[in-house]
Amino acid sequence: MKIPFVIVGSGGHALSVANVARSCDCRLVAFVDDKKAGYTLSGVPIITQGHCKASFKTAHYAIAIADNAIRERVSKEYMTDLSNAVFPTLVHKSSVIGCDVKIGQGTIVMPLAHIGPNSLVDEFCILNTCSSIDHDCCMQSYSSLAPRAVCGGTVEIGTRSAISIGAVINHDLKIGSDSIIGANSYVNSLIANNVVAYGSPCKIIRSRSKGDRYL
Amino acid sequence: MKIPFVIVGSGGHALSVANVARSCDCRLVAFVDDKKAGYTLSGVPIITQGHCKASFKTAHYAIAIADNAIRERVSKEYMTDLSNAVFPTLVHKSSVIGCDVKIGQGTIVMPLAHIGPNSLVDEFCILNTCSSIDHDCCMQSYSSLAPRAVCGGTVEIGTRSAISIGAVINHDLKIGSDSIIGANSYVNSLIANNVVAYGSPCKIIRSRSKGDRYL
Amino acid sequence: MKIPFVIVGSGGHALSVANVARSCDCRLVAFVDDKKAGYTLSGVPIITQGHCKASFKTAHYAIAIADNAIRERVSKEYMTDLSNAVFPTLVHKSSVIGCDVKIGQGTIVMPLAHIGPNSLVDEFCILNTCSSIDHDCCMQSYSSLAPRAVCGGTVEIGTRSAISIGAVINHDLKIGSDSIIGANSYVNSLIANNVVAYGSPCKIIRSRSKGDRYL
Repeated sequence: MKIPFVIVGSGGHALSVANVARSCDCRLVAFVDDKKAGYTLSGVPIITQGHCKASFKTAHYAIAIADNAIRERVSKEYMTDLSNAVFPTLVHKSSVIGCDVKIGQGTIVMPLAHIGPNSLVDEFCILNTCSSIDHDCCMQSYSSLAPRAVCGGTVEIGTRSAISIGAVINHDLKIGSDSIIGANSYVNSLIANNVVAYGSPCKIIRSRSKGDRYL
Repeated sequence: MKIPFVIVGSGGHALSVANVARSCDCRLVAFVDDKKAGYTLSGVPIITQGHCKASFKTAHYAIAIADNAIRERVSKEYMTDLSNAVFPTLVHKSSVIGCDVKIGQGTIVMPLAHIGPNSLVDEFCILNTCSSIDHDCCMQSYSSLAPRAVCGGTVEIGTRSAISIGAVINHDLKIGSDSIIGANSYVNSLIANNVVAYGSPCKIIRSRSKGDRYL
Repeated sequence: MKIPFVIVGSGGHALSVANVARSCDCRLVAFVDDKKAGYTLSGVPIITQGHCKASFKTAHYAIAIADNAIRERVSKEYMTDLSNAVFPTLVHKSSVIGCDVKIGQGTIVMPLAHIGPNSLVDEFCILNTCSSIDHDCCMQSYSSLAPRAVCGGTVEIGTRSAISIGAVINHDLKIGSDSIIGANSYVNSLIANNVVAYGSPCKIIRSRSKGDRYL
């Protein structure tokens, strides 16, 4: 029988992750959320974290938390507490992965997303619906692209940085770590670590610290 | 033999609808347009409305009119006049429909479009090329997304409202009914009924009435 | 044995072209670049132009040069020097081509791109990742769409003109020849020949000549 698949989280992002998992024929057995335990989501029971860690020590897991810093913390907790669990890469069947691409554990690629050839996407990243990175890009761990965000070739996105919905990043640029690019922005210059930046062209608006709210 | 498929309209949008119908293996027998009857479009005859309603009482129909208020009126006329006709949902084979999605009759989903999980798309809507709604969205009847328009999760679009080409709508927002969002706009606030709004961020520019011209 | 496939160029765009060629099951034997001859790219040898033209007189070729004027010049040189070579149209298997579309030799269609019904794409064009033209469009030879650029229906793009990343062109418009539309621009008016234009809405910023740098 197929290995059980558990999704940590029960919000809208968890539903999207479940949708990808189902397109990969995963056997979804539970969502995990202490506050909604006893309910169901899309026909699947929601259980407590205690129940989860006691019952599914060797399951496959997705950490379905959209906030990058919180996803990092929870991913590390689960990897520590469940040393025999597996955190597979999940790629929706409609998405396109180029040649010579490497994708780390725990990364989720939503429908109609694209990863260009010779790109590296590290651990626990999110490429949301219709997002795209082109050739020779690099997404560091826990970074994310919101729906329809797009990067030209040879773009690097730093650890835990978030590119918001519809943003466009020109080729040959680097976004530092723990930075946020606002929705619908157009980035045509380097963006430092630990900043919030938006606009077209994108300007740095203020600094932020790892774990601050997004916008 | 396959049920005949009739497309009401003969403009560019009708051609796009024909393209979707063909990807669904429909047997296209006619376009309907009194002003061009006797000509052909993409190898298919264009006939008059009178000829159509006399000859194809039980056919499958698509109402290929891009204007949302006119499409509503014509759809209702055809449903009244041809009580045994069927108005199927048409989804291009390249498009992606999530789990637990409901789509009403007469709705057309163009190539490379996306409907996220647990979304509702009601009757006679248009999701044009490369458009996307994310998880838990709702499009009311006769609403439309132009090419590459995108909505985050949990967005509601009211009856007959039109989202223009390339527009971006942030998550958790509602667009009222009979409103127009201009091309390339970025929406980050609630938009009332009966308004024209555009810009990045999107601002209400003026009021409009149901059936007014778009922009 | 399959016909050998040669890619002229060895930069990031050449890598993207190789990715498309592989999705079409082409037998990639060489990249051509005098400055990098002796090295390899994605496991394939890079050779000199002299070596190429002596050894692969009847091969299939892609001219993987992103600059439109240079691609025109090099394409014409190769067609003159290698009169028995073939310059096939390459379409990534994830892309969608509508009914009644004509595509010229040497044109490359990258992943998740879209060409609407009854459109004409002439010779040696580039439709980059996630770009889209809608019904009844025309791209003249050597023109290009960058990633996620989108055109509504009945748009014409002139010879050697380049539409940059994320740009949106409204329906029923014409972009002249040798013009550049800047990244993330929204075009809602006719654009003349030989201009650089950008912004939302897009304004003409300055004139340019065929072969000038892009921006």
